[in-house]
Amino acid sequence: MTRWQDTSLSPDERANALRAEMTIEEKVAQLGSAWPGNEQLNANVAPMQDVFARGGVPFEQVRAAGIGHLTRVFGTAPVTAAEGAERVAALQREIIDETRLGVPAIVHEECLTGFTTLGATVYPSPLAWAATFEPALVERMSTAIAEDIRAVGVHQGLSPVLDVVRDYRWGRVEETLGEDPYLVGMMGSAYVRGLETTGIVATLKHFAGYSASRAARNHAPVSIGPREFRDVILPPFEMSIRDGGARSVMNAYVDLDGVPVAANTPLLTGVLRDEWGFDGVVVSDYWAIAFLKSMHRVTDSVGGAGALALAAGIDVELPDTLCYGKELIELVRSGEVPESLVDRSVHRLLRQKAELGLLDPGWAPKVEAVDLDSPRNRAIAREIAEKSVVLLANDRVLPLRGGKIAVVGPCADDPLAFMGCYSYPNHVLPRFPEFGIGVEAPSLVDSLRAELPGASISLEAGCPIRDEDRSGFAEAVAAADEADVCIVVVGDRAGLFGEGTSGEGCDAEDLSLPGVQDELVAAVLATSTPVIVVVVSGRPYALGRHAGAAALVQAFMPGEEGGPALAGILSGRVAPSGRLPVQVPRVPGGSPGTYLHPPLGGNSEGISNLDPTPLFPFGHGISYTTYEYSDLSLSATEIPSDGSVSISVTVRNAGDRAGAEVVQLYLHDVQAQVTRPVLALAGFARVALEAGESKRVTFGLHADRTGFTGLDLRRIVEPGRFKVHVGRSATDLPCSATFDIVGPLRDLGPDRVLTTPATTT
Amino acid sequence: MTRWQDTSLSPDERANALRAEMTIEEKVAQLGSAWPGNEQLNANVAPMQDVFARGGVPFEQVRAAGIGHLTRVFGTAPVTAAEGAERVAALQREIIDETRLGVPAIVHEECLTGFTTLGATVYPSPLAWAATFEPALVERMSTAIAEDIRAVGVHQGLSPVLDVVRDYRWGRVEETLGEDPYLVGMMGSAYVRGLETTGIVATLKHFAGYSASRAARNHAPVSIGPREFRDVILPPFEMSIRDGGARSVMNAYVDLDGVPVAANTPLLTGVLRDEWGFDGVVVSDYWAIAFLKSMHRVTDSVGGAGALALAAGIDVELPDTLCYGKELIELVRSGEVPESLVDRSVHRLLRQKAELGLLDPGWAPKVEAVDLDSPRNRAIAREIAEKSVVLLANDRVLPLRGGKIAVVGPCADDPLAFMGCYSYPNHVLPRFPEFGIGVEAPSLVDSLRAELPGASISLEAGCPIRDEDRSGFAEAVAAADEADVCIVVVGDRAGLFGEGTSGEGCDAEDLSLPGVQDELVAAVLATSTPVIVVVVSGRPYALGRHAGAAALVQAFMPGEEGGPALAGILSGRVAPSGRLPVQVPRVPGGSPGTYLHPPLGGNSEGISNLDPTPLFPFGHGISYTTYEYSDLSLSATEIPSDGSVSISVTVRNAGDRAGAEVVQLYLHDVQAQVTRPVLALAGFARVALEAGESKRVTFGLHADRTGFTGLDLRRIVEPGRFKVHVGRSATDLPCSATFDIVGPLRDLGPDRVLTTPATTT
Repeated sequence: MTRWQDTSLSPDERANALRAEMTIEEKVAQLGSAWPGNEQLNANVAPMQDVFARGGVPFEQVRAAGIGHLTRVFGTAPVTAAEGAERVAALQREIIDETRLGVPAIVHEECLTGFTTLGATVYPSPLAWAATFEPALVERMSTAIAEDIRAVGVHQGLSPVLDVVRDYRWGRVEETLGEDPYLVGMMGSAYVRGLETTGIVATLKHFAGYSASRAARNHAPVSIGPREFRDVILPPFEMSIRDGGARSVMNAYVDLDGVPVAANTPLLTGVLRDEWGFDGVVVSDYWAIAFLKSMHRVTDSVGGAGALALAAGIDVELPDTLCYGKELIELVRSGEVPESLVDRSVHRLLRQKAELGLLDPGWAPKVEAVDLDSPRNRAIAREIAEKSVVLLANDRVLPLRGGKIAVVGPCADDPLAFMGCYSYPNHVLPRFPEFGIGVEAPSLVDSLRAELPGASISLEAGCPIRDEDRSGFAEAVAAADEADVCIVVVGDRAGLFGEGTSGEGCDAEDLSLPGVQDELVAAVLATSTPVIVVVVSGRPYALGRHAGAAALVQAFMPGEEGGPALAGILSGRVAPSGRLPVQVPRVPGGSPGTYLHPPLGGNSEGISNLDPTPLFPFGHGISYTTYEYSDLSLSATEIPSDGSVSISVTVRNAGDRAGAEVVQLYLHDVQAQVTRPVLALAGFARVALEAGESKRVTFGLHADRTGFTGLDLRRIVEPGRFKVHVGRSATDLPCSATFDIVGPLRDLGPDRVLTTPATTT
Repeated sequence: MTRWQDTSLSPDERANALRAEMTIEEKVAQLGSAWPGNEQLNANVAPMQDVFARGGVPFEQVRAAGIGHLTRVFGTAPVTAAEGAERVAALQREIIDETRLGVPAIVHEECLTGFTTLGATVYPSPLAWAATFEPALVERMSTAIAEDIRAVGVHQGLSPVLDVVRDYRWGRVEETLGEDPYLVGMMGSAYVRGLETTGIVATLKHFAGYSASRAARNHAPVSIGPREFRDVILPPFEMSIRDGGARSVMNAYVDLDGVPVAANTPLLTGVLRDEWGFDGVVVSDYWAIAFLKSMHRVTDSVGGAGALALAAGIDVELPDTLCYGKELIELVRSGEVPESLVDRSVHRLLRQKAELGLLDPGWAPKVEAVDLDSPRNRAIAREIAEKSVVLLANDRVLPLRGGKIAVVGPCADDPLAFMGCYSYPNHVLPRFPEFGIGVEAPSLVDSLRAELPGASISLEAGCPIRDEDRSGFAEAVAAADEADVCIVVVGDRAGLFGEGTSGEGCDAEDLSLPGVQDELVAAVLATSTPVIVVVVSGRPYALGRHAGAAALVQAFMPGEEGGPALAGILSGRVAPSGRLPVQVPRVPGGSPGTYLHPPLGGNSEGISNLDPTPLFPFGHGISYTTYEYSDLSLSATEIPSDGSVSISVTVRNAGDRAGAEVVQLYLHDVQAQVTRPVLALAGFARVALEAGESKRVTFGLHADRTGFTGLDLRRIVEPGRFKVHVGRSATDLPCSATFDIVGPLRDLGPDRVLTTPATTT
């Protein structure tokens, strides 16, 4: 047994020992990766070919000196769990047997809405998790995901996405946890905990700023200043590292004010490591290092790109080796790149391999049987789906009463419309259609028929999701005309790089529903039949035109159990309890904007004719019962700038059926040295309440949570007056109180309090 | 005679002497202003009342201790030139006679598209000046404006607007000089020279960042980083101070990354004075200091707002005294605000009063007779209008051949649609309709009838500019159907704060034509008659839907002579020679964006489904002749980092009629330490060419002109390879060459070269 295999030593010591044995080739090889089988995938991804298929070194060649990461062995082509696990094991054995040192690779996969592989559970999309406002539920889901991928030999998942939504038009909004950094951080760190406590490395992406790209176009430049970046974009990452224990971070593709993140030392090393103390591994987003040359043009060679990224703090190149290859070795040999930079990254990676047990003596891949779509998984998927559906408006038409129901719209009978871009069915299936969806996924209309066996339910698509085809309008309108009630189900179909209406590379010019769906909705609304508009989408769409519907329901890609979950909400079996993690805008234009704005970012009548007030605010969602708020009390009205305050409120279910309310605490900084949001979410608690039941919710708000980036770019707690508001949404806040932060202006230290705990009694 | 009246002393000495005589009340009074008659205006400006009418101290009260500025004595209510001049004189006499020291006020007025007063020439809007690409012509215009306002007792004009367009939806795009900082700087500094050489103080506005507000909403927050701010937003201001000699600057209303400009010391003092050496007077935009309290909420009192603005570097509060009033005096008395800050600003203002002759012994207001709409003015207005019309596309339907012409569209017979927001007719007239437009302004249809007396010309509005009224469509289509050719004239009507479709506070949700005008155009395009689409607007609108028109013409609010000018272009009397200072987009959504973007800011097929490629590029414009380019030559291919290169090209009129080509030089930085625009305008020359004539154009490009803000935020010249492209627009560049900047990386010094002179032989 060598020293680096000695499990009695610390991971640091073992990493040092192993690194000391390595040649420069072996060290740089550890910083690279391979995507065996990628040629086949690329051949099937026509729109990506020019951009992405730019010739990373093949597995057989790169593994000569070892391999840092193995990329998406499962995600490349459809395999069963057993086949995939065997394939991973075979590759690991080849690496161990055919390399001098025999160091296994870290195996990573995509697993955002569940393991992105054939037959694995398709959970709801992150925007749906966020709509539950229930971090513990997300943690249960990610624990299940982690157990499944761990069983088949995977060590790292490329999730969660912590980008804070800044523009609803961005294609990847569906992958996010909404537009509030605190909500994103709470839900994201819960997801991370599920992975990390199961031994799977979570990867925080995309660090940072991706969601703020110009006009919401994928990879477009980001105009942002350091204050907005620190106060809005970064907090979820800090929370997920400190409170979630994330061990990996992935860079964002974009440039920030001209500096590509992949070459951004102040961010990848300064903020992440020096300030936050992160000691995990930074991996590149796929091809992001090569983009320094081909897209950002801040270097003219792949070696130069590698040198920039390595110096900035990217440890491992994904998805395969190009810039961290022989050109980089030459630059080290010539002295242009200090070998210490290679050693720094190798050490981080080997330490992680030691932690993962990959350096233990006799480590060998094992193949374990696993049901990737187990009943446990499906139950979690169902629970999230049910808790995430947001009832926006209801003029007494819901719950359904049976009778003659016309179900129309292109998403009514399409289970793929309920799944995100990073689900297997929408991510991989289009290139391998012969394999099928791989999981049971009842459509909404099938689920309604099962839910309401006594009802007479007709179905008309009316139009496709995307194309301008109105030929089905007449049948849809006729069906609506003849029915007692019409449910029109519209929204998105996720896809990659323009294949869908939502998802990576599927950005929107405006927030009209895709294709002619707005016209379809208007056409059925013009009948005299009461119409329930159900939007199942990856982003919020402007619904102002349909505000007159009898009911409006918003679901955010609820996954394979989305059909039954939605049917349960519509039938009344399930009490709606989802809340909006994004606003629902009134008009299609006028982007970008979020609820998180200073006074002049909102409606400024008399200054601009445009009014960005949404149709439904952040946090909104109603149910089949109502909730009353009372007795707001504060433990103090003067709080030292390093102290905290308890804020308590009573919430009562005032209706006649059970439900769950999401009690929301918002903070208003009355005056500050820089402009501040009018309101920002400071805490929340999901509270289940029987009919007539009351509970007392108490938030523990530390003064740190009032902190912000001041004039001189220090993060500070500034004494002064604050208002807290508690209630149902960002604009429905029945209880308010005021407190003062007193004492000296204080810098936020490295142990700053990041969360606002809530207790319910 | 006192020492401060002694004309043998320098303005500095006289200002010092006068200040030394002043009490604190008298000093602070000089930093204030009064808007006599404003009550009457406010009473007429319903939508502004809540926001703006917040009780500045009335003239009678404020003038007790003196007054810094007199605000818009003309602009408030309709007066003749003689009446206005007499009113100014009376107010000045009152100030002189009733105050202890008798120091006259600086009188300022709005004069962007000409003096904003009854009966004064309405010149084309700035976007039209920019379309001429002829700085000398703009200087002739501003000289005429300056002579006119000087004659009636005005000292300062609140123009030009140097905001670089970042989002076409912004209401004030019409007031700008387009989306390229070099073009804005060249045209803007020419305007400034005209004012300043005539003795009128030019006011650069809005310093800085106003145009980049979120979603283009007026006053909304600005997300921008320091590099984009330095490289895109600031250059026109630096050019207009250094090369134009501007003596006043006005702050922008917005906050930049959370810091309101009115309280932004690093900008108003650091950049402006310490770095650029500006020694004039900074005035506040109207009410901008009070907005620190009411809108930005960075202070809780008007005195506090005054203290912040004074410390940041705003010398004079406009339009009346509120924050620079008694609360500020109390703060000085209590020691909270150093008196030295008051002295600093008072000194700057008094020095300017000395320079203007206001401190001379025996100064007295004089009333001079002046024709504010003289034949000279009208000739300049006509020339700019003619040279600014951009022929976008022409399928041999233009010039018109007479016959039966159907003129349709709401802008065809509306001369107000040809005038900007800051023209008297659109700015003041709506509140005093009984006074009339005040100038002759033939509509397009009237001008066409005069231009083509043999033609049969019918007129149908078809629809209003803004409202959703399609009742006139049928008549318009019928008229088009019956004609040999149809001219559809669509676009904007400028107004204030939502009164119009373009102008201050008239922002757009997207780039569809206002109201139902897109539908009107589509309706006439559906006939078999050839259709000429004429857009007369304050911003570019998306014309992709109308790309099949027989001809497309873009005019940017061409002023009172716009009708005859456009008619002359359509008839062929005038050869079209305008070029786009902004792109014409293809689709209404997808904002913001400009031509000035790094690779990932443009079309990135395979990465985003959205393609921001415009329908017509920056710099585009055709004529009734064509131009050929040849023989590009460089004086050197290796240029020291402090040297320069001559770039010569031959341009030939290859058609059979005279015209003028705008030869455009673009620079491409092949690789840099930060992302750089794919192309940026580096020089231009308007060249008149007879049929068959050739000319040689030579640009003198200094290495400084390749400079940019580097990684560490220093402005640098970075050695490396550059490409120059010469041609007709940003995408039609027949001649290219390459050169290398060699030698050391160099910091751009305070005497950096800001312009690229062009000579034509």
